[in-house]
Amino acid sequence: MMTAMDTVSTANAPSTPEAEIRDLLDSYGRAVLSGDVDAILSYYTDDIVAYDAIGDLRFHGLPAYRQHWEMCLSFMKEGPTIYEIHEAGISASERLAFVHYLVRCGDCDQEGRERSGWMRGTACLRREEAGWRIAHEHFSVPFDPSSEKVRFDLTP
Amino acid sequence: MMTAMDTVSTANAPSTPEAEIRDLLDSYGRAVLSGDVDAILSYYTDDIVAYDAIGDLRFHGLPAYRQHWEMCLSFMKEGPTIYEIHEAGISASERLAFVHYLVRCGDCDQEGRERSGWMRGTACLRREEAGWRIAHEHFSVPFDPSSEKVRFDLTP
Repeated sequence: MMTAMDTVSTANAPSTPEAEIRDLLDSYGRAVLSGDVDAILSYYTDDIVAYDAIGDLRFHGLPAYRQHWEMCLSFMKEGPTIYEIHEAGISASERLAFVHYLVRCGDCDQEGRERSGWMRGTACLRREEAGWRIAHEHFSVPFDPSSEKVRFDLTP
Repeated sequence: MMTAMDTVSTANAPSTPEAEIRDLLDSYGRAVLSGDVDAILSYYTDDIVAYDAIGDLRFHGLPAYRQHWEMCLSFMKEGPTIYEIHEAGISASERLAFVHYLVRCGDCDQEGRERSGWMRGTACLRREEAGWRIAHEHFSVPFDPSSEKVRFDLTP
């Protein structure tokens, strides 16, 4: 006899670690677009080590990364309006996973003009009791060694 | 009875994935210091996806990354002379691993003056038949959003 529980488990399965990470990346992107710092921080481990594109060399632990995220979000009056993930490459086992991707991100100025650029993102994840969490994150933009300026002109 | 083989296996064991990754990172650093592009490339998977601090948004596959490494090494007359790995944080399972670290790298000019700066490095590894290989690598320097210049003034 098929029960309601069977239906639910059929609907949710088959869940592979790769599919779980893909879902997480999608929902993480929506959290960033929401501009809700609590929603964003819920994706990280307590001992997150983050290398962001701006700011310090590294951020260690949720309180330090919260402060940085709040500063980043304050740059954008109503949060980012563009956060498009492209070329995501996922490797996952039962306990650890990593994903690398390009991300087009930005917002619109007061005249509605889009200001955006391409960055690279890496997320390294651990499966904790509560589920997958990002234990290490790395965002960056390449720079030109002669001018020492970042290259917002690069596109995939 | 203790045999020579016992002695060898006692000397080499216990090898945990974490210890293997730590050894690999040390020997990878020595390969970079050697300036030997073949030695450096031997650490990567054929399908490496690399996000470097300079150059393109991403490099996909060994031939593209070789060309980039050759260009980078050509900047330095006799290869880098400084490549110090600090604050390495390793997570490893049987099949996948990742490590993040700060790296002070540079060389000396013709007057022997040191030119160096701090970068952030992330390496994501897969265990292949031949052993651990770096499947994804990400190097960067943070930038100042107002000047769009990278911040070589930052220290840990």
